Amino acid sequence: MSYFGSRWFIEQDTPSIAHMFGLKRCVAEKKTPYQKVEIADNELFGRLLLLDSKIQSAAFDEYIYHEALVQPAMLLHEQPRRVFVAGGGEGATLREIFRHPSVERIVMVDIDSDVVELCREHLREWHRGSFDDPRLELVISDARDYLEGSEELFDVIIIDIPEPLENSPALKLFTKQFYTLLRERLAPGGVIALQADDLSSAFLEPHCAIFNTVGEVLPYLHSYRAFIPSFNTMWGYIIAARDFDPAEFSAGLIDSRIEERGLELRFYDEETHRGMFALPRDIRERRKTIKKVIDDGQLLTTV
Amino acid sequence: MSYFGSRWFIEQDTPSIAHMFGLKRCVAEKKTPYQKVEIADNELFGRLLLLDSKIQSAAFDEYIYHEALVQPAMLLHEQPRRVFVAGGGEGATLREIFRHPSVERIVMVDIDSDVVELCREHLREWHRGSFDDPRLELVISDARDYLEGSEELFDVIIIDIPEPLENSPALKLFTKQFYTLLRERLAPGGVIALQADDLSSAFLEPHCAIFNTVGEVLPYLHSYRAFIPSFNTMWGYIIAARDFDPAEFSAGLIDSRIEERGLELRFYDEETHRGMFALPRDIRERRKTIKKVIDDGQLLTTV
Amino acid sequence: MSYFGSRWFIEQDTPSIAHMFGLKRCVAEKKTPYQKVEIADNELFGRLLLLDSKIQSAAFDEYIYHEALVQPAMLLHEQPRRVFVAGGGEGATLREIFRHPSVERIVMVDIDSDVVELCREHLREWHRGSFDDPRLELVISDARDYLEGSEELFDVIIIDIPEPLENSPALKLFTKQFYTLLRERLAPGGVIALQADDLSSAFLEPHCAIFNTVGEVLPYLHSYRAFIPSFNTMWGYIIAARDFDPAEFSAGLIDSRIEERGLELRFYDEETHRGMFALPRDIRERRKTIKKVIDDGQLLTTV
Amino acid sequence: MSYFGSRWFIEQDTPSIAHMFGLKRCVAEKKTPYQKVEIADNELFGRLLLLDSKIQSAAFDEYIYHEALVQPAMLLHEQPRRVFVAGGGEGATLREIFRHPSVERIVMVDIDSDVVELCREHLREWHRGSFDDPRLELVISDARDYLEGSEELFDVIIIDIPEPLENSPALKLFTKQFYTLLRERLAPGGVIALQADDLSSAFLEPHCAIFNTVGEVLPYLHSYRAFIPSFNTMWGYIIAARDFDPAEFSAGLIDSRIEERGLELRFYDEETHRGMFALPRDIRERRKTIKKVIDDGQLLTTV
Repeated sequence: MSYFGSRWFIEQDTPSIAHMFGLKRCVAEKKTPYQKVEIADNELFGRLLLLDSKIQSAAFDEYIYHEALVQPAMLLHEQPRRVFVAGGGEGATLREIFRHPSVERIVMVDIDSDVVELCREHLREWHRGSFDDPRLELVISDARDYLEGSEELFDVIIIDIPEPLENSPALKLFTKQFYTLLRERLAPGGVIALQADDLSSAFLEPHCAIFNTVGEVLPYLHSYRAFIPSFNTMWGYIIAARDFDPAEFSAGLIDSRIEERGLELRFYDEETHRGMFALPRDIRERRKTIKKVIDDGQLLTTV
Repeated sequence: MSYFGSRWFIEQDTPSIAHMFGLKRCVAEKKTPYQKVEIADNELFGRLLLLDSKIQSAAFDEYIYHEALVQPAMLLHEQPRRVFVAGGGEGATLREIFRHPSVERIVMVDIDSDVVELCREHLREWHRGSFDDPRLELVISDARDYLEGSEELFDVIIIDIPEPLENSPALKLFTKQFYTLLRERLAPGGVIALQADDLSSAFLEPHCAIFNTVGEVLPYLHSYRAFIPSFNTMWGYIIAARDFDPAEFSAGLIDSRIEERGLELRFYDEETHRGMFALPRDIRERRKTIKKVIDDGQLLTTV
Repeated sequence: MSYFGSRWFIEQDTPSIAHMFGLKRCVAEKKTPYQKVEIADNELFGRLLLLDSKIQSAAFDEYIYHEALVQPAMLLHEQPRRVFVAGGGEGATLREIFRHPSVERIVMVDIDSDVVELCREHLREWHRGSFDDPRLELVISDARDYLEGSEELFDVIIIDIPEPLENSPALKLFTKQFYTLLRERLAPGGVIALQADDLSSAFLEPHCAIFNTVGEVLPYLHSYRAFIPSFNTMWGYIIAARDFDPAEFSAGLIDSRIEERGLELRFYDEETHRGMFALPRDIRERRKTIKKVIDDGQLLTTV
Repeated sequence: MSYFGSRWFIEQDTPSIAHMFGLKRCVAEKKTPYQKVEIADNELFGRLLLLDSKIQSAAFDEYIYHEALVQPAMLLHEQPRRVFVAGGGEGATLREIFRHPSVERIVMVDIDSDVVELCREHLREWHRGSFDDPRLELVISDARDYLEGSEELFDVIIIDIPEPLENSPALKLFTKQFYTLLRERLAPGGVIALQADDLSSAFLEPHCAIFNTVGEVLPYLHSYRAFIPSFNTMWGYIIAARDFDPAEFSAGLIDSRIEERGLELRFYDEETHRGMFALPRDIRERRKTIKKVIDDGQLLTTV
């Protein structure tokens, strides 16, 4: 009689839209000073990491999320040696960065040591030991505070933090002032990549606000997106640079760099790149109509 | 935006009826050789014990379930000294029995040592140390096998096992042959109480089949019921005896025995008893039309 | 693959408790000036009437709800001739009253003509033509306004209105002032019955507030309750009188009046009555601790 | 207290994955000889058409589904005059075809006259009167039977039928034999487009089986996909031809034909096309491993 099985995680997007994930196992949970962390297993998507009741990544398709976030920026940089990561507690962003043989140093700043600890223990397939790599400096702190207190320059900067909820400390990592700081910490020829919320015909405004905000401080930037099955949507990203347009490259460059660097990627290559960067007409048109810019000076509720 | 909160246990009664319990914490879970055990916390009902995705008891109202199961039989027996319990892994049935000062010995037989262990650890408010009482003999075994191999007689026998699912070993604890065995293990003046599935206008058949089956071997028996909020229904019980009618007693007997024995009960007393034993007309009428008897010789799928 | 079937009505009791009813057919729906009305069919419970997303009655068990509401008051009155009904749009309250041969006149006042029209059309098994009985005067109005403007006295008064939501006009049908008005409209020997919200170990406060409020103006009153499967709970009622205690009657009175009046009831008889009026100890104890009284002068949000 | 609202459509993809759509209105429903049709309104996605409890299209994003299905084939044909449509009951496929000024005749064959009638009445924004265009011949029949009984040739053939459930008559519109029939009905230079199930990293097999099957009879074919928010996934399509490769075209062709033909499209243009046809690496790799071909001779349960 029990067709429903038993336990379900229900993720609600709007008052009238929600998604149900059957849970075959609850693995771990913790209320940290910053958020509620839950780790659980689903039949189709495998292990799930939930922060504040939103899916952050799933074993089944985290390779899509993380390759899409990391690989365009890393491959469009000629020789990334020093990389900065904000957030990224799962360790999979580290894993993707460490694939590149030129990398000499990663500074990763995550505010929540509990998330990092839980991921180290329960998401081994995500980080695959990246936390133990001697090239990593892991800092438990606020990424903005850290960057304000340092003068180090980075070849690639990856922003891998959840979209901010109301009153969340993450809010100030989405402002013009923060992106100005990133611009200053970028080494010559550096590239920035951000996860940047849904980018679909149904949910567009937060992404466009982030896009506009980055565009206030950096001359070259592009939206792109990838379909993440466990997110039920197209996930948006932004790549940006100060000194050159990273999306202008001669045909074949990406595939040849993948080969030169010996990368074994599952999702990303040059054809994938072309698909991710080609936005449909409805989204290009609607993006033009959204003017919002996110500024420290405004009291934000949500992005 | 997240009205649904996060994790829910969904208990389905029929293809078109289900109940949702928000889970604020997953406490423990184990797939034992006999069943899937889950322990979790709900805001309203507190800690929940689930066996095979069915609620067995909830911290909020387990006192109703267990007092209703145990107290009528114990109080309608003049001086219960030896008690047999089949099932009862939570330990709350023990707790209710041990309230009676005359009790000298309890034999409890539960098939699943994992359930007992998990309950000892996580349901302390249920058992309140009853497992440590030296008067308890706890046997991990099949209750029917145990009783077949013993000749001991008991003043009170409590059957506290889940309703059987298809192919469940519990099936043979619901047959005429098993109840015949119980009759033989009953001391003179002994009383039997069974939890006996839903007893409501919507779900009646399994209870009545159990009632009929007990009625094949014991001359005195009564259905009664209690509303358990976390079960969303009236839960049915059966009290039965071989040598006298336990439901015929002079007014005031129950309340005076409660006082004599110094019992501090929350749910049960003589007025409660009268409410539990008075079945509405529709149920009394429909019960007459149900003829099913459960026999070892029939291959049963479900009761 | 589609175990969930398709459409579900989800009724939420608390942030962490909800109930799901599969809908095999949506029959009718209307947003009236007073509420949202939905009529739909469920496999187990048959046709459902929902007001503001709360189940009001179900074809499967409305006989329990309506017999429990109407029959104790009607049978404990010696010869009910004039009856007042507030609410009762389904028409099943009328049906139960008209069973009694002594009835000469019913005044029914419901505020929402759309509900009455939809029920007349789609709930024929509920009202069975009662709306066409010439003894009925149906008034579309506020019941309190109506009674304030009339001096007619009634033998039985039935209050069959939904529990009030925030800012609902029904709020002022739950106050001491309204019950005072009812007392004045009661003929000598008259009896009042009210539906009075959940009365279970889990949901008790609103019922007790209504009980206390009625008790401020009428000397004789009793809580009683019935399990309504489609409500997933014990539903509470209150019977009250000014001139005598309706719950004190000689044994056999109810059953003999049922026979004299030729009533063919499914749920209610004297044994059912005894079960309904015997409240368990935990509820009797907790009721003593709840002191709230509902008064016009307080700005209420919900009962 | 009622955060859930009220009625929900739950669409289940797998035993452990489902999607919930709040229903603010049930518009129409009918059990036809072929399927269960439901039309209802959701806050975010507007009007929904459900066949056998699967979303077929939503007011919010049907333009994506239908432009993606129709426009590549129509625009990559030089001058489409005669078009055949199998299925397409909503009428939006007709709407997209009729945009092209060269169209002289559409034959649309749908098996279910009830679907067509319900869509004509309730989905006016979908068809916008296309059913009344004198160039349309609407045939209520099985598309395969119809084509077997006709020798007419078509410039463009659009297959817009739901994925087949077990024992569905649609099954034989997914076989090698049916596609062979389509090839024979294709005029010189003709193009075929099919809706072809999910095409995502999570659900790939049915699409690939259809792709392989079409590939058995037509030399030129391509998978492409579009994200449809109300489907929660990337939806797959196949474009195929006998006489030329429709996906090989000189840059600018699509955009210039859109302009020449005066099409006002919301979703599709040349950049959109490039995004739809560029499949990510993981999907290209996994597609190679799937060998299934669908043949009349096999008794199929599901594609």
